[in-house]
Amino acid sequence: MMEKRIAGTTGLFCLLGSPVGHSGSPAMYNFSFQNQGLDYAYMAFDVKKEGMTDAIKAIKLMNIRGGNFTMPLKNIAATLVDELSPAAKVVGAVNVFVNQDGKITGHITDGIGFVRNLKENGVDIKGKKLVVIGAGGAATALQVQAALDGAQALSIFNQDDEFYARAEETAQKLATAAPDVTVHVYPLADQAKLKAEIADADILVNATVIGMKPYDDQSLVDPSFLRADLVVADTVYNPLKTKLILDAEKVGCKVAPGKGMLLWQGAAAYELFVGKQMPVAEYQAYEAAQANK
Amino acid sequence: MMEKRIAGTTGLFCLLGSPVGHSGSPAMYNFSFQNQGLDYAYMAFDVKKEGMTDAIKAIKLMNIRGGNFTMPLKNIAATLVDELSPAAKVVGAVNVFVNQDGKITGHITDGIGFVRNLKENGVDIKGKKLVVIGAGGAATALQVQAALDGAQALSIFNQDDEFYARAEETAQKLATAAPDVTVHVYPLADQAKLKAEIADADILVNATVIGMKPYDDQSLVDPSFLRADLVVADTVYNPLKTKLILDAEKVGCKVAPGKGMLLWQGAAAYELFVGKQMPVAEYQAYEAAQANK
Repeated sequence: MMEKRIAGTTGLFCLLGSPVGHSGSPAMYNFSFQNQGLDYAYMAFDVKKEGMTDAIKAIKLMNIRGGNFTMPLKNIAATLVDELSPAAKVVGAVNVFVNQDGKITGHITDGIGFVRNLKENGVDIKGKKLVVIGAGGAATALQVQAALDGAQALSIFNQDDEFYARAEETAQKLATAAPDVTVHVYPLADQAKLKAEIADADILVNATVIGMKPYDDQSLVDPSFLRADLVVADTVYNPLKTKLILDAEKVGCKVAPGKGMLLWQGAAAYELFVGKQMPVAEYQAYEAAQANK
Repeated sequence: MMEKRIAGTTGLFCLLGSPVGHSGSPAMYNFSFQNQGLDYAYMAFDVKKEGMTDAIKAIKLMNIRGGNFTMPLKNIAATLVDELSPAAKVVGAVNVFVNQDGKITGHITDGIGFVRNLKENGVDIKGKKLVVIGAGGAATALQVQAALDGAQALSIFNQDDEFYARAEETAQKLATAAPDVTVHVYPLADQAKLKAEIADADILVNATVIGMKPYDDQSLVDPSFLRADLVVADTVYNPLKTKLILDAEKVGCKVAPGKGMLLWQGAAAYELFVGKQMPVAEYQAYEAAQANK
């Protein structure tokens, strides 16, 4: 397929953050724009926190149509855009923005990607009890989205670090934003509690960096806590199967590895960008063909 | 040929101005980047004068590698960049910029394109007497470059409008910047003078919009002023052959239509962008193939 050339009319979408050179987003979105014959291009720019005020001005000046914020900009972005989606407001972070005639709306699609990834693996989050380990950005986003999408209960475990307070803050916010959901926060050190909470949970989620290279020989969950009818999800996508996912597969659990969450948060962003579903199957086929080259 | 996909590492070049949607620059530069395997993309952004201060900030923030300024930004750009090329300093306008680690240098390649276009048509500007009609941006750029490149004399004709003073200013500046060149400025209404000046000139140039659609049935030069050994150049490229060029061909003149000037000013910009010659022949072949589709 001949790639549509960039013309004077081509609209720009972009990824802002630091570093961004390794990102797969430009390849995915440019493939999708081309696949659907849309006159857009997607590029990445290395921008740090101190550049964000000027970045917002640049987006408006150059009529950059939308894009993504990644680390370390997700939280500061939430304070600088003109409007926030309900989830972005609760999370206090923005990974997706859309510029409509100079008005920038911030969204957070990490949680949407998480819920969608479960759905693609046959799991509906409605009415479910989740145990989520972690209280960082991705963790908070998926906790909030799970609550907004009708989960019944959330038990959040985290180390006794600066993020513990953030988990408690999320619980407080959800008491208002999603009052029907029961949210508890526990220290990860309380392994008896973790075991007990997993025992009557439907879904277990690792939302920490443990399992990611170079922590890929580690898992925060003792394999003996797992059982066959537990769904186990991970936010880590490198390696594609973390130690937790491998442990879960051994026990016979249904699993939802992090790659799907990454893909579906991107697809949710694409819908916000252009109002069309991303050609996910086509992109996956293209990606597989590239990997086999 | 499969177009190289934009990745997270791809560097951006851009055209800034208003309007820019019709510009052929994105197609030409993107073709050339791809043809030479360079990891760059070129896009156009509609920016007006009041946006220029923020645009300069955006170029630095996003590490936009370089690009072009077009109407109405060429003059204001010369006041905002960090450094000017010798020609850009004399002309007081910038159509090309290069961003080297946050330091923006402004260049003007319109005149370079003019001189190169003559050369491609077998005419060396050194020692020649030119009659140039017009005193706007393109006119000034080519007058200055012709002088810097060793023309012997310049006779500038212009209507009695606000640009007449600009022609006189150019003459003054050249008295310092290129003291060996004789520069005169005359009112275009003085047709006897125009006839006399053309009579002993080597090269006649139309650097006004007359001849461009919708003025394509017009020429500012009475065909009786032309003679076979006069070289006739135009800055207008739409239509490809203006009435002046057609009149000149009838008389048997060597001609240099404006399309070549456009091409070569772009090629000169490309060299400033990436330090390599633009694949001009390859691009012309591609353009011809596109036109025949």
